[in-house]
Amino acid sequence: MSTVVSPIGTMNVLSSSEVSKLQDTTQGGLYKLFRQCALAALNCDEHSDNPYKILEQHKDFDIRIIQEHRGLKLELINAPSDAFVDGKLIKGIRQNLFSVVRDILYVANEVSTDHKFDTNKSDDISNMVFHMLRHAKAFVPKVLPNLVVCWGGHSISDYEYKYTKRVGYQLGLRGYHICTGCGPGAMKGPMKGATIGHAKQRIGGSRFIGLTEPGIIAAESPNPIVNELIIMPDIEKRLEAFVRLGHGIVVFPGGPGTCEEILYILGILLHPKNQHIPFPLIFTGPTKAKEYFQQIDKFIGKTLGTEAQRRYKIIIENPPAVAKEMKQGLEEISKFRKQTGDAYHFNWLLTIDHEFQLPFEPTHEAMAALQLTKDQPTYLLAANLRRAMSGIVAGNVKEVGIQAIAQHGPFKLTGDPDLMADIDQLLQSFVEQYRMKLPGSHYEPCYKIMKK
Amino acid sequence: MSTVVSPIGTMNVLSSSEVSKLQDTTQGGLYKLFRQCALAALNCDEHSDNPYKILEQHKDFDIRIIQEHRGLKLELINAPSDAFVDGKLIKGIRQNLFSVVRDILYVANEVSTDHKFDTNKSDDISNMVFHMLRHAKAFVPKVLPNLVVCWGGHSISDYEYKYTKRVGYQLGLRGYHICTGCGPGAMKGPMKGATIGHAKQRIGGSRFIGLTEPGIIAAESPNPIVNELIIMPDIEKRLEAFVRLGHGIVVFPGGPGTCEEILYILGILLHPKNQHIPFPLIFTGPTKAKEYFQQIDKFIGKTLGTEAQRRYKIIIENPPAVAKEMKQGLEEISKFRKQTGDAYHFNWLLTIDHEFQLPFEPTHEAMAALQLTKDQPTYLLAANLRRAMSGIVAGNVKEVGIQAIAQHGPFKLTGDPDLMADIDQLLQSFVEQYRMKLPGSHYEPCYKIMKK
Amino acid sequence: MSTVVSPIGTMNVLSSSEVSKLQDTTQGGLYKLFRQCALAALNCDEHSDNPYKILEQHKDFDIRIIQEHRGLKLELINAPSDAFVDGKLIKGIRQNLFSVVRDILYVANEVSTDHKFDTNKSDDISNMVFHMLRHAKAFVPKVLPNLVVCWGGHSISDYEYKYTKRVGYQLGLRGYHICTGCGPGAMKGPMKGATIGHAKQRIGGSRFIGLTEPGIIAAESPNPIVNELIIMPDIEKRLEAFVRLGHGIVVFPGGPGTCEEILYILGILLHPKNQHIPFPLIFTGPTKAKEYFQQIDKFIGKTLGTEAQRRYKIIIENPPAVAKEMKQGLEEISKFRKQTGDAYHFNWLLTIDHEFQLPFEPTHEAMAALQLTKDQPTYLLAANLRRAMSGIVAGNVKEVGIQAIAQHGPFKLTGDPDLMADIDQLLQSFVEQYRMKLPGSHYEPCYKIMKK
Amino acid sequence: MSTVVSPIGTMNVLSSSEVSKLQDTTQGGLYKLFRQCALAALNCDEHSDNPYKILEQHKDFDIRIIQEHRGLKLELINAPSDAFVDGKLIKGIRQNLFSVVRDILYVANEVSTDHKFDTNKSDDISNMVFHMLRHAKAFVPKVLPNLVVCWGGHSISDYEYKYTKRVGYQLGLRGYHICTGCGPGAMKGPMKGATIGHAKQRIGGSRFIGLTEPGIIAAESPNPIVNELIIMPDIEKRLEAFVRLGHGIVVFPGGPGTCEEILYILGILLHPKNQHIPFPLIFTGPTKAKEYFQQIDKFIGKTLGTEAQRRYKIIIENPPAVAKEMKQGLEEISKFRKQTGDAYHFNWLLTIDHEFQLPFEPTHEAMAALQLTKDQPTYLLAANLRRAMSGIVAGNVKEVGIQAIAQHGPFKLTGDPDLMADIDQLLQSFVEQYRMKLPGSHYEPCYKIMKK
Repeated sequence: MSTVVSPIGTMNVLSSSEVSKLQDTTQGGLYKLFRQCALAALNCDEHSDNPYKILEQHKDFDIRIIQEHRGLKLELINAPSDAFVDGKLIKGIRQNLFSVVRDILYVANEVSTDHKFDTNKSDDISNMVFHMLRHAKAFVPKVLPNLVVCWGGHSISDYEYKYTKRVGYQLGLRGYHICTGCGPGAMKGPMKGATIGHAKQRIGGSRFIGLTEPGIIAAESPNPIVNELIIMPDIEKRLEAFVRLGHGIVVFPGGPGTCEEILYILGILLHPKNQHIPFPLIFTGPTKAKEYFQQIDKFIGKTLGTEAQRRYKIIIENPPAVAKEMKQGLEEISKFRKQTGDAYHFNWLLTIDHEFQLPFEPTHEAMAALQLTKDQPTYLLAANLRRAMSGIVAGNVKEVGIQAIAQHGPFKLTGDPDLMADIDQLLQSFVEQYRMKLPGSHYEPCYKIMKK
Repeated sequence: MSTVVSPIGTMNVLSSSEVSKLQDTTQGGLYKLFRQCALAALNCDEHSDNPYKILEQHKDFDIRIIQEHRGLKLELINAPSDAFVDGKLIKGIRQNLFSVVRDILYVANEVSTDHKFDTNKSDDISNMVFHMLRHAKAFVPKVLPNLVVCWGGHSISDYEYKYTKRVGYQLGLRGYHICTGCGPGAMKGPMKGATIGHAKQRIGGSRFIGLTEPGIIAAESPNPIVNELIIMPDIEKRLEAFVRLGHGIVVFPGGPGTCEEILYILGILLHPKNQHIPFPLIFTGPTKAKEYFQQIDKFIGKTLGTEAQRRYKIIIENPPAVAKEMKQGLEEISKFRKQTGDAYHFNWLLTIDHEFQLPFEPTHEAMAALQLTKDQPTYLLAANLRRAMSGIVAGNVKEVGIQAIAQHGPFKLTGDPDLMADIDQLLQSFVEQYRMKLPGSHYEPCYKIMKK
Repeated sequence: MSTVVSPIGTMNVLSSSEVSKLQDTTQGGLYKLFRQCALAALNCDEHSDNPYKILEQHKDFDIRIIQEHRGLKLELINAPSDAFVDGKLIKGIRQNLFSVVRDILYVANEVSTDHKFDTNKSDDISNMVFHMLRHAKAFVPKVLPNLVVCWGGHSISDYEYKYTKRVGYQLGLRGYHICTGCGPGAMKGPMKGATIGHAKQRIGGSRFIGLTEPGIIAAESPNPIVNELIIMPDIEKRLEAFVRLGHGIVVFPGGPGTCEEILYILGILLHPKNQHIPFPLIFTGPTKAKEYFQQIDKFIGKTLGTEAQRRYKIIIENPPAVAKEMKQGLEEISKFRKQTGDAYHFNWLLTIDHEFQLPFEPTHEAMAALQLTKDQPTYLLAANLRRAMSGIVAGNVKEVGIQAIAQHGPFKLTGDPDLMADIDQLLQSFVEQYRMKLPGSHYEPCYKIMKK
Repeated sequence: MSTVVSPIGTMNVLSSSEVSKLQDTTQGGLYKLFRQCALAALNCDEHSDNPYKILEQHKDFDIRIIQEHRGLKLELINAPSDAFVDGKLIKGIRQNLFSVVRDILYVANEVSTDHKFDTNKSDDISNMVFHMLRHAKAFVPKVLPNLVVCWGGHSISDYEYKYTKRVGYQLGLRGYHICTGCGPGAMKGPMKGATIGHAKQRIGGSRFIGLTEPGIIAAESPNPIVNELIIMPDIEKRLEAFVRLGHGIVVFPGGPGTCEEILYILGILLHPKNQHIPFPLIFTGPTKAKEYFQQIDKFIGKTLGTEAQRRYKIIIENPPAVAKEMKQGLEEISKFRKQTGDAYHFNWLLTIDHEFQLPFEPTHEAMAALQLTKDQPTYLLAANLRRAMSGIVAGNVKEVGIQAIAQHGPFKLTGDPDLMADIDQLLQSFVEQYRMKLPGSHYEPCYKIMKK
């Protein structure tokens, strides 16, 4: 399918210099990134999670900017046909396509080249996240906390998917909006469910926020129900955006990516300064997924201790209970922010240690060098465990990771023997539960736990 | 659950005389009707289709009008708890509750007591339907034909229900709105599907119209996705509203009620004056439901002939094809109405014979007296067949019908032997396909085919 | 100017029978009334207040309904050219034109022919006023009292006109909306002023309500700033609409019409049952108009007594003080209605005696028969004085009145000698202040005060 | 008056670093500029045009930012009481106050400190103007050209002011929006008139754009009808914004400032590259102001020649003719932009020579060095004449200019004798017409024409 699309709303006023940046196919230019993210946005119904395949399948896809003074238009050439209904691009996808333009340009203009934000300073990174979200109009001031982040796997089983819909429905009935990492599975189900809940409650202006980043968008392309697509510069900014923008988190079953997210949020909540900051965090799934959370709970208990376990609640097979628990948590959040004068739309008070903000490049060296020992504060241990999981996710699904593994073999992880055993056991349970790869396909581990 | 609710929007200005009519529990008063329809609107998640049971279960339900000069409020006492989320009435149900008030009052004020409409005149009846719909704000002028009526059973199997969702999704993706008879099953599925389709296409102002009438609302209570509930005075006005307000019809599998609706629309389309009026009519279902439409098609072929068969298309297991076929049909409708100067929002040109407009009381006498012979114009034969089906529906699910059967035994149907054999065969196939009652329960026929 | 116009909004769905009523040129038909009101709506910038002249000038004006199933259109033939800008009808006038259709049809359908409202019952008349206003969508529920009625002459001097603008500006700055009797002068100035006040306060949805009736619309055609034109069936319903819909009244200088309105509202407020009902009533004008209110105040003191005088406040040359006084009054109204449970949008609690509701036909007989004596309750004396003024207005500006005077000579008024002297003095002062006719033109009295 | 105000809409999310910039009272900080512009926005009804006086009168005025995470609030201390109605800040002023915040921050963040825009490049300056306007949301894409710039004096006589209202009314009736330089007089009248025109045409979303800059805002404070206040960094960016954002220009009588604007636009239109670009330009005023335009026309004829004269039309005492002429011009603009692919919302095609973009500091040296000779292209002569006028305006009303004159005496202008005589004659006529200072006050020239 080839076509020309114009933006919805106000996006159609770009300056000439902005247009040329997007068209620049040289090394420093934005074209490659732009094409890749645009393809992901168009590739909404793709079920493969192998970004390689997607790029391969759509090798002849091209996107051109039609530079009209009248406004911006995009020419799509050989776009995935699923993005079209009777030859017309689905409007939600069209909108997301222009969110890609918006965020890529903003990062290029304000974040990368500029000296506005000093990435050596924790505050500056938070400020950058704030600016990106504000620019994407993600802040709705004066509205009571109502944004629930849903985490979980993008390739989950059918009964798990249905469960996420049921939870989304209950959240939607209570007027909550959904923020996920884009993509299928646990990222799509809650939005679908909430759509029906909102319809029954006559809630207009449903917010279905998808937070993604260039490295992950290809594997988890935004489903078109996402009506606020935001592309953060990297995975750490994206994680920070989740916890500062969202008001509470529901975690559904997933794989190592979900585990990474759990370690990230626990690492933050374990920071001494965050001890008294409320943050609703619920792990939930259908009866059949009980095992997944049991394993994770056990792992957390052993590695991060009972204090970490106190920070979340596990609810099995009970969507209304999840929604009620979240409701109670959000009411507490409202009270807390009112008391402390913190904004409803952005969680300024939460301390996010610099360790959690710095991008982690999962090279073989970096993975090998991870300090996986217990002689450090738990929140730092959480940071390192998070990185280990991040590397495994990259090795499983990210373009660069897959290439690195292909070239140099699996990542090697070293550390305290107990800890290594715990990690091994957890990862092994993921493999057994088919959480590394879809059932039917064989999973070749991208990591190796080294015994000392 | 007991609570006090106030209306959404402008309904809260009633005059004192209107309020007293609603509270009048005497014979001529509206209280009984009001309570019954309100209970149905509240009873949204009830799966039983036995109105008796519902009334029985909620014997202690009461509704009182709180007469405040400031505006109208309703006090609900012992309302079904499914209508509430955390103790608060679902907003869609609240809205539908006040639609009940609106239509009951309108019928009482303008239709029943008034001499505005002479029911002996076909034109006056159409005019009454027009006035009721206008008063319910169902007309959106200047919008191209985009309202698809979905007919089908309210108690269908799970795979049939899912199929209706898939068709609704494809219709929604193409920007179409849905009108059904309220209730679960084929009345709910297309709306749910279209909700997701609309979300992806960023279509605000989805219209999910539920057309019902006091006799049927208890058995098929409006699901809360219905955002325009309209309660017509009787089943014939409701059917006329479907064909004059809707722009095309999709028929899903159902039971005798669905068959009644098919006979109604074919009877109208077979009227000589309607010969050249386009009307998209599609029968569709999943592979497993093929049998149902084959039986109906065979029955129509034998009784009403090939001319009738030419008026519809049967599509099995192909939602996008249904949506595309409907799209083509609606484009033809647009062209036709433009050419003939007919309104987009109301099909004035369609001739509906007086026979199809007069209420049919399915008493034992009336059922026995039905002229079920071939020596009459096909459109009149269709009218009589329609009445026969209507009686069977009443005997199956309507309060009065069930009582009459309980007292006097099954209805007796007489007529041309061939015809009677065809009817018998069709009804028998419904029984076998569990389309008279849910599988598992035994169906005791409410009719008897008399051999001469 | 001739053109075809289609309605704004939802008016374009009329039934065929409604269309034929509007086109019916026979005695009972609506055509004559429709043409006359439509001409008045089109004749917005006419400064003459002689309806004769207007009808004369536009003898060749015609209005035809184009009966399209698609919707209603109006064909205007030889319409006044001031209603057009570059050949296109001013949109405000177009809107008002369709308000004419709406109200004329409603009166014909519901009020006149129907037996819904028994005009022998005071309650029924109030109910009728309520229904007409509700049908015209004049009720905005849940909004605190903010509608200020402005009364005063339609042909006032330039400095008085400017003063009304300044008062309107101050009311607008405080967020108040304006309701007047349509027409130029004191009916237009406050709206113009409030428009600027609203612009500065960023108030969208300004309400400029014009309440008129068929007998007066020709002489006081609605200026196009009026964005809610409502045509009540007769002058008494219109007056009742003013006091039940409006929340407070500002009276500017005028002539006998203004005096009629003052006597009407005082007559109501003097009713024993209304003693404790608050109602902000302010007489105001520029320094030069002081005399007018002094004369009226004196007259009221002598005829209706100090109790009547206590019901209003006179403020000279001080627009902010008027607005502040009104603000205080409206806040009291809010409090009172909350306490008593009365609606904000319609003043149900106010008792309006049947005497004030019955249409008064100012024939020579009726005028001669008026009981102008002090041996009656003051509120009834006010009713009779009001009728006397009403007759004089008719004799001055209404079509039927002017004709009657031309045929039978001036009206004759008889009564208590003191009272007659007071009336004579007041009317004489009106003549001297050029409040009967514009300066320059000679005023030939349409009345004669008879000495016993 | 002292109060705390919060923003309307989305402005209430500022980052902490932005807040501190606004509070920074050091040399490089924004506090001084912020206070001065805020005072101007609050000082809306001040009639003096001497910024000295205003600052003097409100010496004790202070503005503080209340830094709440929840959002931004402003504390106003000893604010001008005219900005309040019953103790509450007029909403339009409140909005404009936050526009001040928006633009001052944007200039500080993006324009001044950044290396985004190279002021040595003409294109970069235009791009900067584009970015500022886009950030202020001044672009409404896809709307046909409808924005009329009105220039003219801020202190004009009452009959001239009324005339500007009448022209604004006619423009408003035709659906045009108004852009002026803020302030009273010819900057306010057209907006007031258009407000009424829009009300009659039921035009919502009236746009009343005020373009100003820090140096002029104190003397010409924005009247609260201005609903889009934009503060450009300096006078040249402001002038460029006028001609690139506006679609046509109406010039009313004024003083040397108006003459400066005329020379600016003519200088641009005379540029060889702009020869074929249409631009509606109308000089208009009431009969009594004929002299003003005759003098200017004569001056232009003598200095810039007939080609310049061909670029404008003079219309005396005929508001409808002005509006019709503008309508024709705007239709031509629409056609031209469609043909050339230029944007409707921003005039990219117009060449503005670097000479017209560089800020001109009217020091005594710069004024003395102006090349006022005929041996240069007419568009450059226009640029220099423009600068001369700009200097005279500064000497008359701007803070820095008045101080410079007080210290060093009048500016000295030298050049070709003929030209000098023409200038002298023009300025002399301004003095005689009281266009340098209000009648009654003595005008002490701030310039001296030097004879060689």
